[in-house]
Amino acid sequence: MSFDLKGWSTERLQRVEEALSAWVPADAPAGLGEAMRYAVLDGGKRLRPLLVLGAAEAVGGHPQAALRAGCAVELIHAYSLVHDDMPCMDNDILRRGKPTVHVAFGQATALLAGDALQALAFELLAPDDAGIPDRTQARLCRLLAQAAGQAGMAGGQAIDLAAVGRSLTEDELRHMHRLKTGALLQASVMMGAACGEASPAAAAGLETYGRALGLAFQVVDDILDVTADSATLGKTAGKDAAQDKPTYVSLLGLEPARAYALELLGQARSALATTGLPDTRALLALAEMVVHREN
Amino acid sequence: MSFDLKGWSTERLQRVEEALSAWVPADAPAGLGEAMRYAVLDGGKRLRPLLVLGAAEAVGGHPQAALRAGCAVELIHAYSLVHDDMPCMDNDILRRGKPTVHVAFGQATALLAGDALQALAFELLAPDDAGIPDRTQARLCRLLAQAAGQAGMAGGQAIDLAAVGRSLTEDELRHMHRLKTGALLQASVMMGAACGEASPAAAAGLETYGRALGLAFQVVDDILDVTADSATLGKTAGKDAAQDKPTYVSLLGLEPARAYALELLGQARSALATTGLPDTRALLALAEMVVHREN
Repeated sequence: MSFDLKGWSTERLQRVEEALSAWVPADAPAGLGEAMRYAVLDGGKRLRPLLVLGAAEAVGGHPQAALRAGCAVELIHAYSLVHDDMPCMDNDILRRGKPTVHVAFGQATALLAGDALQALAFELLAPDDAGIPDRTQARLCRLLAQAAGQAGMAGGQAIDLAAVGRSLTEDELRHMHRLKTGALLQASVMMGAACGEASPAAAAGLETYGRALGLAFQVVDDILDVTADSATLGKTAGKDAAQDKPTYVSLLGLEPARAYALELLGQARSALATTGLPDTRALLALAEMVVHREN
Repeated sequence: MSFDLKGWSTERLQRVEEALSAWVPADAPAGLGEAMRYAVLDGGKRLRPLLVLGAAEAVGGHPQAALRAGCAVELIHAYSLVHDDMPCMDNDILRRGKPTVHVAFGQATALLAGDALQALAFELLAPDDAGIPDRTQARLCRLLAQAAGQAGMAGGQAIDLAAVGRSLTEDELRHMHRLKTGALLQASVMMGAACGEASPAAAAGLETYGRALGLAFQVVDDILDVTADSATLGKTAGKDAAQDKPTYVSLLGLEPARAYALELLGQARSALATTGLPDTRALLALAEMVVHREN
């Protein structure tokens, strides 16, 4: 019998939504809380929290640590979208089918809400009363900070900015995406693993799985930017092409990009097989979902 | 013989500058590292690192943890200035006598550099190879995240934004500053204390000291905005008055604001006396410097 990803996800998504709603404060001062909640709640596929929870379950990790880690990664992702959408960056007005945060709340509040969401992510990882071992808290902070900063997401965004209108080689494009979106997706898997005590083989296999999945996510994103419409995507389609941004489709062509996504799915599957973990079905199903998704 | 603050500071500032220069990466991608270093190096009084080191020495704390904590707090402070100076916030072009980051590098890079500096702050606090106990790492991340986020600095900035052109009561003004600048200054002291094992009395006394010092800092800032010129301040003077921002001077008057700063210095001194710690001379001298500074 095949794995029921929908059933598995539904129960976990409910826990994640409840936790995010509890932890992103409504009462932050002067409208800041409202903007933070707008940026985070009622939207998004929550792929990163599902990866955290899937990896944590695969290694038998601490459930409360995993829930906090999943929410923390989602907050980093949400803040990056808020800042990325601002006029001085991508200047986008539509996100998840809603006006972007700076359109709804003004640029200053959007800037501060993003900043506060990043701080909140680390606050979630280091509670003093949740029974999470200090060692786990320190590892989670380390992995998230590395993935979010200049050697990860923020660095990738800087390369992306500098690349508009330039031609990139496939190696340069892969490096950019490995930082911009890959680092946080891979960190999601590794943070889930860090909620327990994974063997070296399991940790290495999950790391490889996370890298392949992160890259596949971006390849498929580039494909969907060309093949899907804005209503399906919930964001402006065709934007990369319009801005003359290099993508896997512009570099490889559409069909080779599709083949590459399937090749990466194969790499992710193989990596899971090397972990020696008894049940990685949720992680495999998530990788399949990433490659076969339509938005 | 009185305490030699200049001698004490000089040695510690050298360590802090060397550490910041080593840890803020020159090789971050696409000009991001250059902007990060521009925002952090060769500028600033480094009050927050000195408070961290002073408190850590007072409790006999872990020296490497204290150096990392001092640099981490400074990175949070530096990122807040980068974002605060942006056109959608204070729109300031001069900082520490130099063009602000967005003037020198563009708004998009300034936004990303600020984001990356915040992540780097947490990365510094959670190294895997520096011999810092996991418990210390977790406590430092917790204190910094709480002070930087919506219940601290970012929340205070949101109140500040919403307050332009409005009249605030003294209580509202104090609440705003307690969050906007006070939280991070107080956290500096508490993070220093968290590098060791302070007794409950010492921790409580240092917390009270940090709160009084944080408030005194802002009162004196408001006084200097009126009484000093831009060249002395290294930033645009008279700006709060020009923007009709509420300040302690506009609320209390100049002389009562000066008296209030001295009262807070007295509170800081009394709090240090309750700690039972053998040597708090550096912390006392730092509080005196905050109140009597001319820029």
